[in-house]
Amino acid sequence: MIYLDHAATSNPKPAQVVEAMTRYISQDCANPGRASHPLANDASRLIFETRERLLNFFSASDDAHVVFTGNITESLNLALKGLLVPGDQVIVSSMEHNAMMRPLRQLEQEGVIVTVVPCCPNTGLIKADNLKAAMTPKTKLVAINHASNTFGTIQPIAHIGLLCRQQGCLFLVDTAQTAGVIPIDMEASCIDLLAFTGHKGLMGPMGIGGLVIGNSLQGVTIKPLITGGTGSNSELEVQPDFLPDALESGTPNLPGIAGLNAGISWLQDKTVDAVSQHELTLTRQLVKGLQAIPGVILYGPDHTQPRVGVVSFTIKDKDNGEIDELLAYEHGIYCRTGLHCAPAAHKTLGTFPNGTIRLSIGAFTTSEQIEQAISAIKQLAS
Amino acid sequence: MIYLDHAATSNPKPAQVVEAMTRYISQDCANPGRASHPLANDASRLIFETRERLLNFFSASDDAHVVFTGNITESLNLALKGLLVPGDQVIVSSMEHNAMMRPLRQLEQEGVIVTVVPCCPNTGLIKADNLKAAMTPKTKLVAINHASNTFGTIQPIAHIGLLCRQQGCLFLVDTAQTAGVIPIDMEASCIDLLAFTGHKGLMGPMGIGGLVIGNSLQGVTIKPLITGGTGSNSELEVQPDFLPDALESGTPNLPGIAGLNAGISWLQDKTVDAVSQHELTLTRQLVKGLQAIPGVILYGPDHTQPRVGVVSFTIKDKDNGEIDELLAYEHGIYCRTGLHCAPAAHKTLGTFPNGTIRLSIGAFTTSEQIEQAISAIKQLAS
Repeated sequence: MIYLDHAATSNPKPAQVVEAMTRYISQDCANPGRASHPLANDASRLIFETRERLLNFFSASDDAHVVFTGNITESLNLALKGLLVPGDQVIVSSMEHNAMMRPLRQLEQEGVIVTVVPCCPNTGLIKADNLKAAMTPKTKLVAINHASNTFGTIQPIAHIGLLCRQQGCLFLVDTAQTAGVIPIDMEASCIDLLAFTGHKGLMGPMGIGGLVIGNSLQGVTIKPLITGGTGSNSELEVQPDFLPDALESGTPNLPGIAGLNAGISWLQDKTVDAVSQHELTLTRQLVKGLQAIPGVILYGPDHTQPRVGVVSFTIKDKDNGEIDELLAYEHGIYCRTGLHCAPAAHKTLGTFPNGTIRLSIGAFTTSEQIEQAISAIKQLAS
Repeated sequence: MIYLDHAATSNPKPAQVVEAMTRYISQDCANPGRASHPLANDASRLIFETRERLLNFFSASDDAHVVFTGNITESLNLALKGLLVPGDQVIVSSMEHNAMMRPLRQLEQEGVIVTVVPCCPNTGLIKADNLKAAMTPKTKLVAINHASNTFGTIQPIAHIGLLCRQQGCLFLVDTAQTAGVIPIDMEASCIDLLAFTGHKGLMGPMGIGGLVIGNSLQGVTIKPLITGGTGSNSELEVQPDFLPDALESGTPNLPGIAGLNAGISWLQDKTVDAVSQHELTLTRQLVKGLQAIPGVILYGPDHTQPRVGVVSFTIKDKDNGEIDELLAYEHGIYCRTGLHCAPAAHKTLGTFPNGTIRLSIGAFTTSEQIEQAISAIKQLAS
């Protein structure tokens, strides 16, 4: 098997991730924050440590907060539905995933103004001038997919963040394809809210994600999606108003948090810079290899531009679904074909409604695997 | 260690649970429903199989649906916030957990009418007559905690379900303390919505729960808490309207689902009847043992009444917190003390605001452990 579906989930996970999860599923399994016996205290410590690790990893301020969720979709829903009320304007790019667009279309029905800024039809890049032109006194939030899950385009978040700070609106970044893949500095990029998932570049398991809430949100109420027991203020039937308890209810995903903690720890040892360089080198190898195959049509940034290891292509006069099947079942190359839950991005780059075949690279992908993928596609294109 | 905190989470988990999770964290890790390569298909099959297993386990109809969530708190929020609109009445017992009461107090602020039916101050049991008397033409939903997480009281859900069916309102059951612990038959008990958690009696890991939506909900719209990518209708920026996709967005907790599937499978081999009998025997042993200790005050049903293995007590003239600490750090007995996120239940039985010390029994608890706990408490009470 050559696994090139890392944009869906990274595979394999580091051995430490499996070990940490096993520990908290079996011998050290206890509900954190609900009792004071040693096992429960150990679980609470693990959660505290993981929050601290995440703040450090994303260069957030010490007084920022991490709220855990089940996945980044929940994180985005929490940020969007928690902040936006009828009459507010939110601005997004035309490269967003449905994890962003579906909650926004729901909010639009309730009176939130959703403005989509068109991106470059070749690269998918947003233009800061267009973004600025879309801003009005009603703009409460700019919400941007850091890197496209379909075309690999990296948006200039530091530039956008500064613009938002200058214009007095909040900035939410969807890091589904970038957390752990390229360095992210919340403070330097003026990011107010950072949504992350644990199971892609952060090398943790499926089932855990979160929202980092910067200190610029102090005094701003985020309405919880889910309320209930928090192990705090147990005498009251109203939700506590302090973070993270205000937005985190019920038993947390302890094994998921343990796995995420181990995944980030592995990444910190290896360094994000090294992973980033590794993936960029392989991405350039893949893009150059595919460019040389007659009939292969590549979309998005070329091999000289900044991008993450997500590469979309089609083959002239061939059906995407058939190529996908031949890649998987004849060549053992596992990828993903279709619209990748991002119809807006496909419309932007002109690949809607047929979609593309997507190859995506991870920390454990090798140059030999990329060579084999190129060779298989060459054969299928001929 | 004598672990008597099973009402918080079961410990240990069956070996099969750890094995299944390890498999889907490591070699068989792929995002289900998003691609068509063999790993992704295998993940999709696992999820399908787990949904089927749950329907079968709870004796739901074949056309009922399972929606996965991160925990039962999310399941209850989904049911309550998804169904109730301003002007609707919802009836609960006075024994509910904050996972029920906090979302309801939120909804009350928005105009939902919340009626709390008082329960017996000795046993915590609800009286069907009082419930019936509280019903009005506005009653949309009756929502009941099947067994108290504080006192072990089992509510007569078959009786309540029939009443709801006769009166034309929906019936939601919170099975946090009963799923896997006593047999539950959705059809026979006229349960329309069943909220469950994976990490207690179902013997799975923390991080996975769900809501079973009976076929009586056909045609009833439940508003989603979370919207986003579903791997279906990917060309649209609106949420699909079919279950489970309408209510389930983003990458699912695949290792959690694998662990839950293995936990229920283990339970089905052992049978819920056998587990139930085992826990009841130990509960009676514990209650009888504690009753015989001078100074120990027991709350809730006595040893002759139906109950789950959750036993609350205090010791005359002793501080609960100190006893808890001595139990944990001098006798190695791990339990939970306080209000157990259920202030309403404590108010009902007169133990508010000081709370109780709670011992809770699981499938792996032994008679020797119960004997040791009784002996330790006897020593501390003297």
